Amino acid sequence: MNSVLINGQALEQIPVTDRALHYGDGVFETIAVINGAPRLWEKHLSRLQKGCDRLSIPMPHRDLLREEVAQVSRDQATCVVKIIVSRGSGGRGYRPPVPAAPTRLVIRYPFPDYPPSRAAEGVEIRLCETTLGCNPRLAGIKHLNRLEQVLARSEWDDDTVVEGLMLDSEGHLIDGTMSNLFMVLDGVLYTPDLSRCGVEGVMRSLVIEAAHHDNIPLRIEPLKLSLLKSAQEVFITNALIGIWPVICCGENRYAAGLITRQLQHQLVSLMEETSCA
Amino acid sequence: MNSVLINGQALEQIPVTDRALHYGDGVFETIAVINGAPRLWEKHLSRLQKGCDRLSIPMPHRDLLREEVAQVSRDQATCVVKIIVSRGSGGRGYRPPVPAAPTRLVIRYPFPDYPPSRAAEGVEIRLCETTLGCNPRLAGIKHLNRLEQVLARSEWDDDTVVEGLMLDSEGHLIDGTMSNLFMVLDGVLYTPDLSRCGVEGVMRSLVIEAAHHDNIPLRIEPLKLSLLKSAQEVFITNALIGIWPVICCGENRYAAGLITRQLQHQLVSLMEETSCA
Repeated sequence: MNSVLINGQALEQIPVTDRALHYGDGVFETIAVINGAPRLWEKHLSRLQKGCDRLSIPMPHRDLLREEVAQVSRDQATCVVKIIVSRGSGGRGYRPPVPAAPTRLVIRYPFPDYPPSRAAEGVEIRLCETTLGCNPRLAGIKHLNRLEQVLARSEWDDDTVVEGLMLDSEGHLIDGTMSNLFMVLDGVLYTPDLSRCGVEGVMRSLVIEAAHHDNIPLRIEPLKLSLLKSAQEVFITNALIGIWPVICCGENRYAAGLITRQLQHQLVSLMEETSCA
Repeated sequence: MNSVLINGQALEQIPVTDRALHYGDGVFETIAVINGAPRLWEKHLSRLQKGCDRLSIPMPHRDLLREEVAQVSRDQATCVVKIIVSRGSGGRGYRPPVPAAPTRLVIRYPFPDYPPSRAAEGVEIRLCETTLGCNPRLAGIKHLNRLEQVLARSEWDDDTVVEGLMLDSEGHLIDGTMSNLFMVLDGVLYTPDLSRCGVEGVMRSLVIEAAHHDNIPLRIEPLKLSLLKSAQEVFITNALIGIWPVICCGENRYAAGLITRQLQHQLVSLMEETSCA
């Protein structure tokens, strides 16, 4: 079976005219496919739709995407599928072609073999020097302009450190290079406001639902770095990892505490409910 | 003759694994080739080198690039050549592959048929609502993360407006979507400081040299929007257009004044000196 579909065709190359290549003019989703079912499918589609709307790129039909995800994952029932929607080909210059003829890429990757200890015992993370520029028009969506994350991720080689946290240019905690950030202080769950930069992760959204479900007080607001020092629990989330407790970030040490454990547990039930079999 | 070379080969497609497509992980140059000679070649190479250094991407050999530019422009002696250097193919995830095997694209486009009136009589521009995020690590270089420019350029359809100016998130004037900005007030030439965002254009650099050459006082500093209202002359620059006087930006009207004319004149001599025949 082919592991790449480009506009539904089994191809492995895209034209050099594609605007994703020239400008990063598009959006993407990274989806965990578990036993043939794309996990949090509706949430991925909603964010893709939001990104397409924000960039005025026509959204591919949902059924078509669902069919193509099934097709690339047919002979590897547990895998990662990445969907990229670019504005498609264009001439030279930033002006978007009207109407756009978007390029739709559906690509299968192996599911990463994360050690189970990461979710069970927790992980070490670090603070990155690379900051995030603020732009409300691009905030929240998962667009293809990811040089800030690339630079941040290239700041360390040590494989015992699994993630790096990023601040915005004003010193607010925003997210990790590939994950969202949650912190617990005195029974309150905090996660950064992402209206000026950062990516609104699908797992972040599920954790917020889980917190509401369990009546855990939640605050989504601009967060200063100092909260990272005073927090009693810290964890990171993304579509593939779920929740990983953070046990160490620089000089700060944390326990994988009660609220983290409760949310991990709650997430399992919620994911079963929302999976698309 | 082929108009695209990918790593020296006459191809028109790139692998879906290329990191330019996934992350905008690379840099580019847009070069005016005039009668077979790439204009401001050394300046383009210097900026490309700076961009590659900033992103830790190995810079292609200069002679190789020169040869490939000659090759794609062989049967169209006046044209635009775009060079893209991406970090090349990689797996899923932001972490850059080490060592990188960069992808080198050299693409020929027709030279745009700008009406001569634009340089002679001046142009109308506008102010964009889309702002630029600040990131010192990405400022100045011509990287492939260009969604801010795409969004800004999609704010207007009116072909009588040729460019849109962009502010940073703190309200400083930075540059146009595809050009740099200069303003004259009381005999002093001003251009925005680009250490936090914006692209350091090769033509901007030549205008700065021309101003020094002619002993025109020059200030490169953070500039507030109010300067656009009080300026007596305004002009925009890029590698293809040279200098276009601005005669109108929103409600502000300008004359194509003496300093603008003097610099246009001076540029012609400097470009003859620095062209690479």
